[in-house]
Amino acid sequence: MNLPAAIEPSLLKRPDEDWPGHRLVVREPLPLDCGIDLGPFTIAYQTYGTLNADRSNAILICHALTGDQYVADPHPITRHPGWWSTMAGPRLVLDTDRYFLICANVLGGCMGTTGPKDIDLATGKPWALSFPVITVRDMVRAQKRLVEHLGIEQLFCVIGGSMGGMQVLEWAATYPDAVFAAVPVASAARHSAQNIAFHEVGRQAIMADPDWCGGDYLEAGRKPARGLAVARMAAHITYLSEAALHRKFGRNLQDRNTVTWGFDADFQVESYLRHQGSTFVDRFDANSYLYITRAMDYFDLAAEHGGALPAAFAGGKSRFCVISFTSDWLFPTSESRELVHALNAAAANVSFVEIETDKGHDAFLLHEPELFATLRGFLNGCAEHRGLPHD
Amino acid sequence: MNLPAAIEPSLLKRPDEDWPGHRLVVREPLPLDCGIDLGPFTIAYQTYGTLNADRSNAILICHALTGDQYVADPHPITRHPGWWSTMAGPRLVLDTDRYFLICANVLGGCMGTTGPKDIDLATGKPWALSFPVITVRDMVRAQKRLVEHLGIEQLFCVIGGSMGGMQVLEWAATYPDAVFAAVPVASAARHSAQNIAFHEVGRQAIMADPDWCGGDYLEAGRKPARGLAVARMAAHITYLSEAALHRKFGRNLQDRNTVTWGFDADFQVESYLRHQGSTFVDRFDANSYLYITRAMDYFDLAAEHGGALPAAFAGGKSRFCVISFTSDWLFPTSESRELVHALNAAAANVSFVEIETDKGHDAFLLHEPELFATLRGFLNGCAEHRGLPHD
Repeated sequence: MNLPAAIEPSLLKRPDEDWPGHRLVVREPLPLDCGIDLGPFTIAYQTYGTLNADRSNAILICHALTGDQYVADPHPITRHPGWWSTMAGPRLVLDTDRYFLICANVLGGCMGTTGPKDIDLATGKPWALSFPVITVRDMVRAQKRLVEHLGIEQLFCVIGGSMGGMQVLEWAATYPDAVFAAVPVASAARHSAQNIAFHEVGRQAIMADPDWCGGDYLEAGRKPARGLAVARMAAHITYLSEAALHRKFGRNLQDRNTVTWGFDADFQVESYLRHQGSTFVDRFDANSYLYITRAMDYFDLAAEHGGALPAAFAGGKSRFCVISFTSDWLFPTSESRELVHALNAAAANVSFVEIETDKGHDAFLLHEPELFATLRGFLNGCAEHRGLPHD
Repeated sequence: MNLPAAIEPSLLKRPDEDWPGHRLVVREPLPLDCGIDLGPFTIAYQTYGTLNADRSNAILICHALTGDQYVADPHPITRHPGWWSTMAGPRLVLDTDRYFLICANVLGGCMGTTGPKDIDLATGKPWALSFPVITVRDMVRAQKRLVEHLGIEQLFCVIGGSMGGMQVLEWAATYPDAVFAAVPVASAARHSAQNIAFHEVGRQAIMADPDWCGGDYLEAGRKPARGLAVARMAAHITYLSEAALHRKFGRNLQDRNTVTWGFDADFQVESYLRHQGSTFVDRFDANSYLYITRAMDYFDLAAEHGGALPAAFAGGKSRFCVISFTSDWLFPTSESRELVHALNAAAANVSFVEIETDKGHDAFLLHEPELFATLRGFLNGCAEHRGLPHD
């Protein structure tokens, strides 16, 4: 990882990625948890709204496993609306008339921030599996560089769902003075055995695909699309509740009146899953999927702090709002409750809301009025304490 | 499917399957739900205990998706003890000193009963995907031929877990006079959207494997081992509860003190899953996995009876014992409860027990004392009514 001192930033940009948004090239290497120094590296990010004069109105949004920095603009590949466009925008909960929103693609990602599909300048080839294994804390360390670059000493709020929530917790634990308010949604302070198991199935599906080529598919001009699609399908089931699947699809047949007596997608739920799998491969990199799932598996905030979760938050002054969903079986309420107990043990300022919904883990991405109302109330209270405009 | 009238039974036996147990070659074709007549076909089965003089002490055991007829003998490939050897044997719940136990490999299976890996006599090649799609009712129709062959007019009991329970329900609905007592364990009267979704992931994993060869892997001398292993891994997670996974593995590392910063099986749960996947492919056929999962997906007992589940059981005199497990999220108690409501609506004789356990769906295969006690009590009561020896 010893790289030449003078690197042209343009070398870090891939010619096929003429995507909108900002790029920050960080020249000073980043010390990673695995012991390697990574650098220079690129952070791709979006901002919305205006940073106020005393730089006190910034909200950092942390994205989930397959998310990206396009919170409130169309995705440059799929053209779908931003993944949190229900939440972020003028007069929405994350109000761009008041707040300056920042969202960066995570380290290891595939939407502009340095990850395994990028060129390792030392070899001139894509990193692939020679990319260092990164952790959630490494992602947060990279984000800290960006926040410093923007001249922001303290973020008004760090917010995110699922793996985004893990980053929120890591921010509050690692940089407590830089976080005024922290909102982990549908998340946990460590990845459970069942979640590791589901991730392992996804990784095995990718690595079983001969087009994965031991990770070197980019060099080979191939793409492990079938394996990645299977990984996505398996994961997607875990994002929904059984009730939501039943309500959406039940046993309804897809464009037919009787079964085909074969292995076509007879049922709507099969057709839906196949669609989820096949569209995902157009926008996501298989090795990024390996690296980011691994970062989640390794996440165990208590273990990083001598085995005691309250120690992670000791002495911090951040205000927490912990949110879970009743039908989320991937990050169940019990995980949020454990987190709240630890925050209480650390004498933190914390509110906890379990939201009744049948939408499963994905509820944090969907139109969920109680989620919006909860966050609006929490942010207003925090804004008042922080001396920012509020309702 | 029009086959020559005179078939040498030996032609239906595969040379590589010198496995212990009985083989019945059924010459009269079986009319399948898909409209095709299948025949001749083989049923491979095991029996334990002795049929009494009036042939009233027979218990038919129906196996689950990846089960087989080796209930209480070592599996001929893995050498593991029979899958229900805790349940079936002298003085056990399914007491071979009192009862005559029968278990047949299901139609479409790969342990001796005719399935997609067998030779289609019309072409001289393995059936592969030209094997007709079968249903749970077809499996039961095939079993009925065996029971008739054994000269048994009425089974004392039909019992099974998971897909075995689906067969139990199909027996009670299709041949009510042939079933004195019926015990569906950890089962449902129809396959849910979530369960169809998990099956679809497994099928896509198999069909994504280039060694699947469009189903013709046997002819090609190949084996879709990686795809089948991934399918098994995904399914296996659904057989366990999160609590069981947490208790067994938690976040424990496998034979190491620190993570490897790579994609080896760092965690015990990963190692366990990989082992489950890789050993499964030694004993199971990938196309059988496709056909049997499809049969489960198609299972909807109410739909077979004009949309009303009670109609499936109308007029029947079988006694039912419905059993579910609190931590089973694949076939949750709510499914058993719906079944019980329908049985009540049909004025059936039914008892229902939900067993408190954290072992998940797999509880029906494990040492579960309350399951044993429940079944012992139910079978004793039934034996008394049937005039059989009882405690």
